Amino acid sequence: MAEERELDRYVRDNRSRYEAMLGEMVEVPSISMDPVHAGDNRRMATLAVEFLKDLGAEADVVETKGNPVVTGGWTAGRQYPTVTVYNHLDVQPAQEPEWRHPPFTFRNEDGVYRGRGATDDKGPALTALLAGRYAADRGTRLNIRFVWELEEEIGSPNFPEALASNRMPTPDSVVVSDTIWVAKGRPAMPAGLRGLVAATLSLRTGEVGAHSGVTGGAARNPLAELCALVHACVDAHGGRVKIPGFYDDVVPTTKAEMDGFARSGFTVNRFKRAHQFRSLRTSSTRDVMRRIWAAPTFEVHGLVGGYTGPGVKTVIPAWGELKISMRLVPNQRPEHICRLLKRFIKAQNPDVTVELEGMLEPFRGIQCGPYADAASEAMRAGFGKAPVFTREGGSIGAVSVMARAWKVPILFMGLSLPEHGYHAPNEYFDWGQASGGMRAFAAYFEKLANMGRP
Amino acid sequence: MAEERELDRYVRDNRSRYEAMLGEMVEVPSISMDPVHAGDNRRMATLAVEFLKDLGAEADVVETKGNPVVTGGWTAGRQYPTVTVYNHLDVQPAQEPEWRHPPFTFRNEDGVYRGRGATDDKGPALTALLAGRYAADRGTRLNIRFVWELEEEIGSPNFPEALASNRMPTPDSVVVSDTIWVAKGRPAMPAGLRGLVAATLSLRTGEVGAHSGVTGGAARNPLAELCALVHACVDAHGGRVKIPGFYDDVVPTTKAEMDGFARSGFTVNRFKRAHQFRSLRTSSTRDVMRRIWAAPTFEVHGLVGGYTGPGVKTVIPAWGELKISMRLVPNQRPEHICRLLKRFIKAQNPDVTVELEGMLEPFRGIQCGPYADAASEAMRAGFGKAPVFTREGGSIGAVSVMARAWKVPILFMGLSLPEHGYHAPNEYFDWGQASGGMRAFAAYFEKLANMGRP
Repeated sequence: MAEERELDRYVRDNRSRYEAMLGEMVEVPSISMDPVHAGDNRRMATLAVEFLKDLGAEADVVETKGNPVVTGGWTAGRQYPTVTVYNHLDVQPAQEPEWRHPPFTFRNEDGVYRGRGATDDKGPALTALLAGRYAADRGTRLNIRFVWELEEEIGSPNFPEALASNRMPTPDSVVVSDTIWVAKGRPAMPAGLRGLVAATLSLRTGEVGAHSGVTGGAARNPLAELCALVHACVDAHGGRVKIPGFYDDVVPTTKAEMDGFARSGFTVNRFKRAHQFRSLRTSSTRDVMRRIWAAPTFEVHGLVGGYTGPGVKTVIPAWGELKISMRLVPNQRPEHICRLLKRFIKAQNPDVTVELEGMLEPFRGIQCGPYADAASEAMRAGFGKAPVFTREGGSIGAVSVMARAWKVPILFMGLSLPEHGYHAPNEYFDWGQASGGMRAFAAYFEKLANMGRP
Repeated sequence: MAEERELDRYVRDNRSRYEAMLGEMVEVPSISMDPVHAGDNRRMATLAVEFLKDLGAEADVVETKGNPVVTGGWTAGRQYPTVTVYNHLDVQPAQEPEWRHPPFTFRNEDGVYRGRGATDDKGPALTALLAGRYAADRGTRLNIRFVWELEEEIGSPNFPEALASNRMPTPDSVVVSDTIWVAKGRPAMPAGLRGLVAATLSLRTGEVGAHSGVTGGAARNPLAELCALVHACVDAHGGRVKIPGFYDDVVPTTKAEMDGFARSGFTVNRFKRAHQFRSLRTSSTRDVMRRIWAAPTFEVHGLVGGYTGPGVKTVIPAWGELKISMRLVPNQRPEHICRLLKRFIKAQNPDVTVELEGMLEPFRGIQCGPYADAASEAMRAGFGKAPVFTREGGSIGAVSVMARAWKVPILFMGLSLPEHGYHAPNEYFDWGQASGGMRAFAAYFEKLANMGRP
């Protein structure tokens, strides 16, 4: 009881420090997708090192061909177990017109922390960091290492290189804090992630735009042809992917998994409200959960080319580029899906060029055993309620990289809520999740120390 | 012979004046599609009035709810016939990345006149104006009226209002100079225009963009649904429109018309080169001519919504807007085609909103009789070669308006060449077409005067 009160006091006393650090981090536009922001990602790394050192931790920058990886933490001794906490400090672009305030100006509205990256993933990173300091200050017999990546949002292309440098030694377990609960007040721990294949499909039919009166009918229309290609790839209304062989390796969900999903607190109405959807492809709760966690997808994210100003400019463009992605589930293999996509597109429209923009493997995690139990109990300690195991519809490229390199258990202790707006305009994080998260991480570190070396 | 030499000298002596006037006009970005440029269209009207007065003509500005119409000319007397020369001084937008020089900075490269609007339609307007002054100075017994519109590129929405004002009295005939030859050195006079229906089709499925990992599969994808709608409306590869009833009122081309087309000098290779196409929907000469002059179309001009920056941002947008148009041929009626489109879209996807952006009727002109003969002989006088009758694939909304209001013969004496880049980047006009055009218009005015009042 005394211990719990001590932790509560620590959390309360560190609130303004947490908010100040988060504010500084959010105001660095560390957008990894746009090369223009490479300098901001460098600034982000410098700031992260500063924060680690300010808290008395070791800190190090691992260089790669791209953005660096920041690592650091507290060393208790070689005889004690080591946990690596993974977060990322790069963020999504934020050019959506729906932003109601400048995305890179931090706003603290009485414990609601607004700005791009607040929930994905700067807020959770700093939450785990402050919990780490609590554990270190109390002499917890655990080596706590942080790995903060700056290329997660572009699929972690240089993370394998960073791991291969051996500057981040193999831990006994990994905890990833970059996932989203199903509902507020109902902690969730995903035991699986979807993979991803992203690509641009481009088509050039001429050198310059052409007058649709003068040439229309004879001229090819690259936008219309790319639309036809979308229709060939996916049933836009039902969502079924029509690329031959696409579903061959999908592992069907088990009854046990679907029952776990059912206990997650998921409701279609809350999902619609959280994401502000007007309607969905289905109204069945089970079907929505299956679709977002356990089924693959084909999405169109943008069609570039042609006129996008006011009114209609009746020019036939010479070029178009379709931005698409496919989410994958176990056991679909990204390389194989890419081959299927390329073959299908070549058959449908041989003039279309396919450029891969990223590949991430789907991941299947653990739901039982000592690590799962410790994480589960820690989440209950932090939030007052035992978590359920779900799956995560998103993809974290670094997870498969760590799984392959280190071959140790990887757990997920995410802190974000659906309404926080992952990748969406008006992103925010909040003190309720941050403070509960600090308590949960502190409890988890304690339990890992008690487990000793495996 | 003496007369011809006099005209030649006039044309030569007025070259630098012509170039100076065209330069001033091109440098006014009179883009009618973008309301931001309303002031530039006003400036364009003021400049046009100035030019008319500088040449000793009457000049007047007819106000409308939108951009004004400039009118003016030379009056010979009520006992003489009246011709109205129609041109427009508004231009297409010019934001294409392919522009090799600033579109609203005039460049005169030794008789090649570069800039947006040079060929469509400021160059031809000034050509006819200088020919008018030549005729007036020589005491030609003809009333020559100019009508310069500033909303042609947006379908002439306020032109009926301007005509209804009776400030532009009914002439005995109209000549329109806003069309394109089939090939350089081979004058062409269209005897038909395609009509147009332009529309935006928009679909909103949510309020903000959604994370494709977190929601993908259950979330509707408005871009994919709009692509499916395109596929439902048109065979993108063959070009056939699939909206039921679309072709019902199309008048098939006669053998005589097709034979006329065949004499026009049209070749598929020149067409491809002029418009810089890599390939076309068909390689047959007859089929290309039929498609661009005598068949209706369905085009996609742009798809707004989603991510269009570098890479792929895996967000599912909440909204998308498709910009489409259909070119129509006699006897398709725009209102009827709109009804068919709306009914079809409602059946395909009831959540899609259709916003009409413009409607123009197709037009069937004259190919024989005294006016056609006079115009034909004038073109031969100007360019040394008799013109052929073709059709024009483009649409000029003002033509149907004048046909309905005035019920007098409307002839087409266009001066533009395919390579001039109508509506395309790097638009230009040239002295060869301008000087030939001045000679042709001067000859036409002379012939109209000789014909007397009908």
